[in-house]
Amino acid sequence: MNSVSGERLNKNSDHPYSVTSMTLADGRELIYFDDDPEVLNGSVKRILTDSRELPHAKTDSEIRRDPLSGEWVAYASHRMNRTFMPPANEDPLAPTVPDHLPTEIPSPDYDVVVFENRFPSFSMHMSRTPSAEGNDGGAEQHSSDDDALLDNGMVPHRPAVARCEVICFTSDISGSFKDLPVSRIRTVIEAWAHRTKALSAIPEVRHVYPFENRGEEIGVTLQHPHGQIYSYPEIPPRIRNIVHSSKKYREENGSDLFDDLLSGELGEGTRIIDRTDHFVVFVPAAAKWPLEVMVMPRRSVPDFDALSQEERADLAPLLKKLYTAVDKFFDGVERTPYIASWNQAPTVPEDRDHVRLHLQLFSLMRSPHRLKYLAGSESGMGFWINDTTPERIAQRFREIWDDK
Amino acid sequence: MNSVSGERLNKNSDHPYSVTSMTLADGRELIYFDDDPEVLNGSVKRILTDSRELPHAKTDSEIRRDPLSGEWVAYASHRMNRTFMPPANEDPLAPTVPDHLPTEIPSPDYDVVVFENRFPSFSMHMSRTPSAEGNDGGAEQHSSDDDALLDNGMVPHRPAVARCEVICFTSDISGSFKDLPVSRIRTVIEAWAHRTKALSAIPEVRHVYPFENRGEEIGVTLQHPHGQIYSYPEIPPRIRNIVHSSKKYREENGSDLFDDLLSGELGEGTRIIDRTDHFVVFVPAAAKWPLEVMVMPRRSVPDFDALSQEERADLAPLLKKLYTAVDKFFDGVERTPYIASWNQAPTVPEDRDHVRLHLQLFSLMRSPHRLKYLAGSESGMGFWINDTTPERIAQRFREIWDDK
Repeated sequence: MNSVSGERLNKNSDHPYSVTSMTLADGRELIYFDDDPEVLNGSVKRILTDSRELPHAKTDSEIRRDPLSGEWVAYASHRMNRTFMPPANEDPLAPTVPDHLPTEIPSPDYDVVVFENRFPSFSMHMSRTPSAEGNDGGAEQHSSDDDALLDNGMVPHRPAVARCEVICFTSDISGSFKDLPVSRIRTVIEAWAHRTKALSAIPEVRHVYPFENRGEEIGVTLQHPHGQIYSYPEIPPRIRNIVHSSKKYREENGSDLFDDLLSGELGEGTRIIDRTDHFVVFVPAAAKWPLEVMVMPRRSVPDFDALSQEERADLAPLLKKLYTAVDKFFDGVERTPYIASWNQAPTVPEDRDHVRLHLQLFSLMRSPHRLKYLAGSESGMGFWINDTTPERIAQRFREIWDDK
Repeated sequence: MNSVSGERLNKNSDHPYSVTSMTLADGRELIYFDDDPEVLNGSVKRILTDSRELPHAKTDSEIRRDPLSGEWVAYASHRMNRTFMPPANEDPLAPTVPDHLPTEIPSPDYDVVVFENRFPSFSMHMSRTPSAEGNDGGAEQHSSDDDALLDNGMVPHRPAVARCEVICFTSDISGSFKDLPVSRIRTVIEAWAHRTKALSAIPEVRHVYPFENRGEEIGVTLQHPHGQIYSYPEIPPRIRNIVHSSKKYREENGSDLFDDLLSGELGEGTRIIDRTDHFVVFVPAAAKWPLEVMVMPRRSVPDFDALSQEERADLAPLLKKLYTAVDKFFDGVERTPYIASWNQAPTVPEDRDHVRLHLQLFSLMRSPHRLKYLAGSESGMGFWINDTTPERIAQRFREIWDDK
């Protein structure tokens, strides 16, 4: 059942790495991204066979569109049983070592690894095929509501076809993104770029979303440092809103929303935290969260795949600095819970010019011992109330930015 | 400093009650809604003098519009210091009784009381006047971005002028909304209607939002049974989305979105929980939360103020039944944390026909011991993933609906 889908070496860039794909016992794909010189020169080989006996991956997710809000919602009831905070010796993201049960990753070591989520919200392994749902299936379908089944003539729904991937930043269960060496962060960036390109090529996919949830406080179910890469069969509400704002801005002003936003922030200065040759780090002027920061390229770049080599090299140390500062933000809190949310342009060609890649990193923590709860105004109405100001958030970041 | 703004008796309806307004020591308004016969016949009088010495209420909130999402965000940094879970003998929502410190409510007893929030997100008591911000102030301003100051030419912002009110359902700190007698729930409905009308008359207000957050699990800071009534200086995102869907639906289908939604649900039946002469209780076909239920009038009613006497009388016992069922939903959980979110039409005349009053009651609890966390997909992208299905939620409600 296990097969290797190919190996690619990227030796021409300033950051050589290899990409090796294999198939897990249940049919899911796993991809090694290696920067270790011994792997690159062939003296160490990754294991490409999954010894477990697993039933073939199957998912029953579907999406439905709410006729009132217009938003799509995914139903993934199999996720109710997903792995929840296993002890360290049952870490499913650990490498597989002798005398231990095999994990999701067959090799005894790895650098960065990406694989299809075992409990996905969206999946290519649907147990119900689109045609069984009354559709014909096929690539053209996903973009039109007319192709979806209607529930009561009001609620379009269809199988949630797309891919959800897990990305492990390191084989070491302890530590965090900020503890990665800069060269490993660069490999993560390369993996995000690779996956963005690959997932964007899936006909059903309209948006690719790399993100990281960090902290038990926000429901993280595995402590091993990892992120996720969702691909969505519909453009998510936030991105749809940005596309709308961006188009409207260009019509009204004849210029690019992101260009003007960055030059406005750089001119004003009160919310700027740092700037490099290729990126600006700032707190958005209308930040929703008690800790919120953005990293945005100066150039109009739709997604990771479109970043130049120079931009990737510039971004890696900047992310290390930012994530380090996030853990110093609250006195007495060594692991700030956060969501690192990489906004990318939709895969739909006509929308690609309207969204610039940017990281929106935010925390629900509002002081060392209190979380911000999303209560009636936020959860019910979508109207955020922030107990601090963007200027204070930026001031705090500047105070701690160069601390070691 | 204390003054009584008037008393109104409503004896003509099937549910007589009185409305008595006073001014608290810091200038905030408090309003008693009484259904007690002794209050109505004048043999018991409410205290209309606040004996505390308080500095005059002042607020510095402002709102800003995010140029990317297009959403308004409120900044209310004074709320960082709000009262947090005081012991029962310091309950600020208790009546003021002899030998105890005076609370927010001067009377030794009350039925239902509404007052301006001491730590509001929006306020009429701004310490900075609109003109000090570069505006002229006045009623016409709020509806146009052009009147707001621009930050960097990109981010409109202005003082957050509107009113946030607290509504106490009972003078008894213990118990919950579901424990209120039906006649008291009716008085709460009358208070919601009264406040909707009054707040809608404030020129700056564009939307009135009665809601209740219940449960420490979702950050409730006072255990005393109470709700809140926000009025917003801008139409909140959820309501804006509904207006958009509703207008589009009418254009495309020539019929009313809510009419068709209700008849679709009643025809389908799988998500219907109960129906009365005037209301339908159902789980929305695209529910976002692990527990979510809607109560919607059969008639096109924009808000509480527009409900007929018959509808109000019909609604009160139905709400008691619903809130009772919510606390039976999860085995072993006696107090389900929930947000009860009353969606009303905007006060803007051209939008009033496009939103029907409805309760969206939801819980972040996904099983007896686990909360649903809003992680990357929900908080970052606005794309909800639900671990259950609307049909299962409805099935569970039907199982417990008639339990005592």
